[in-house]
Amino acid sequence: MSGTLYGLGLGPGDPELVTLKAARILRQAPVIAYPLAEGTPSFARAIAAPHLPGGQSEIAIGLCMADAREPARAAYDRAAFEIAAHLGAGRDVAALCEGDPFFYGSFMYLFERLAADFAVEIVPGVSSLAATAAAARRPLAARNDTVVVIPAPLPDATIAARIEGATSFAIMKLGRHFARVKALLAELRLIDACIYVERASLPEERILPLAETGNDAPYFAMILGYRGAEPAMQVPRRKAAFA
Amino acid sequence: MSGTLYGLGLGPGDPELVTLKAARILRQAPVIAYPLAEGTPSFARAIAAPHLPGGQSEIAIGLCMADAREPARAAYDRAAFEIAAHLGAGRDVAALCEGDPFFYGSFMYLFERLAADFAVEIVPGVSSLAATAAAARRPLAARNDTVVVIPAPLPDATIAARIEGATSFAIMKLGRHFARVKALLAELRLIDACIYVERASLPEERILPLAETGNDAPYFAMILGYRGAEPAMQVPRRKAAFA
Repeated sequence: MSGTLYGLGLGPGDPELVTLKAARILRQAPVIAYPLAEGTPSFARAIAAPHLPGGQSEIAIGLCMADAREPARAAYDRAAFEIAAHLGAGRDVAALCEGDPFFYGSFMYLFERLAADFAVEIVPGVSSLAATAAAARRPLAARNDTVVVIPAPLPDATIAARIEGATSFAIMKLGRHFARVKALLAELRLIDACIYVERASLPEERILPLAETGNDAPYFAMILGYRGAEPAMQVPRRKAAFA
Repeated sequence: MSGTLYGLGLGPGDPELVTLKAARILRQAPVIAYPLAEGTPSFARAIAAPHLPGGQSEIAIGLCMADAREPARAAYDRAAFEIAAHLGAGRDVAALCEGDPFFYGSFMYLFERLAADFAVEIVPGVSSLAATAAAARRPLAARNDTVVVIPAPLPDATIAARIEGATSFAIMKLGRHFARVKALLAELRLIDACIYVERASLPEERILPLAETGNDAPYFAMILGYRGAEPAMQVPRRKAAFA
């Protein structure tokens, strides 16, 4: 009997924000797989690390840092081939995913290659969006609010059009697009309605009003904006939760 | 020293989708609080139940089923008063939240009443949105997709305007709005691009193409729609994950 491929959501970074289900699968899976960009440690594997018993086989999916599609395709083809061999031999494989596997996750590249031939179970995780709203200490949505999630690489006109009409918005994947997006939000007179959060839930988490940030941001950063907040969302001043 | 109020995200329903952090806080908190609609058991408390050691004090926030604001306000005023007394006496209080506390959660009503005077920590949880995409076995968003989340009680014209332009959309809080929203999606010629998921992650979970549903849906149901899916999201046929 073939093994099961798990698309394992590991949450935003704090290893304690892993679900009990993901922790159980990490303890049991004989094989784990995770993306590995050249020269940087795997974030997904780092989140999983405290939960791994040791001794499992590991498949590092090597991706070059450039956003070139073809090499990534080849890397996923190779990884899918290797994973299929384990599954065919009856071994479960846990594919480690930062955040939630189906919310801007790279797990889809394995899913599309393997779901027709093997049992696949998606284990949802805490998204970076939820962790960011928690860090910002502002509800993302209430009652009949609409929320839109927008990747920063999109052109200015598209970002502006998507923001229009939503009660609140999240702009993800900032990195090298940060200065441009910040300028756009200033132009739209929304900069004072925005909070910037970097590496939510990690010890190096940073939270700032967007207007007080510099011009650089890592990939793992997000802007939350509130266009039409209800009075109930005009929340009282912060008080440190860690007294 | 005052206690801490935890806004505790418990995930979509499967008690195994609780995070390790939420499970730890449930083991330790001397007081729990949760909303309780008249005549129905508390969903949030049911998710927490397997993780409670027993012996904790419980504050049930009584809400009438009608969507009348004033009684809800009075109930939250009373609950906040009772919670404040525990916090003031140095006892931590865990406010139990289905899904994620800041994603359409009622925790905001306690947060706005108590955050100025007490330490509050938000513990993000797996959202019903993530669980629904996992159940539907389709990525919600990839690469530069935009996602919009829309509550079903909004008027047709608003729903149609919000869907326009987003790559994928989620319509929440269906309940008595389901037949109207389904008719709207048929009119927009989007019904065949939609998946219906009821009670994601629970044993009674149901997944259907939207076109094959009846005219009734519970509150805990969601429609996912895919307007401009990339080829990579045209995912292979399902294979049961539970062999």
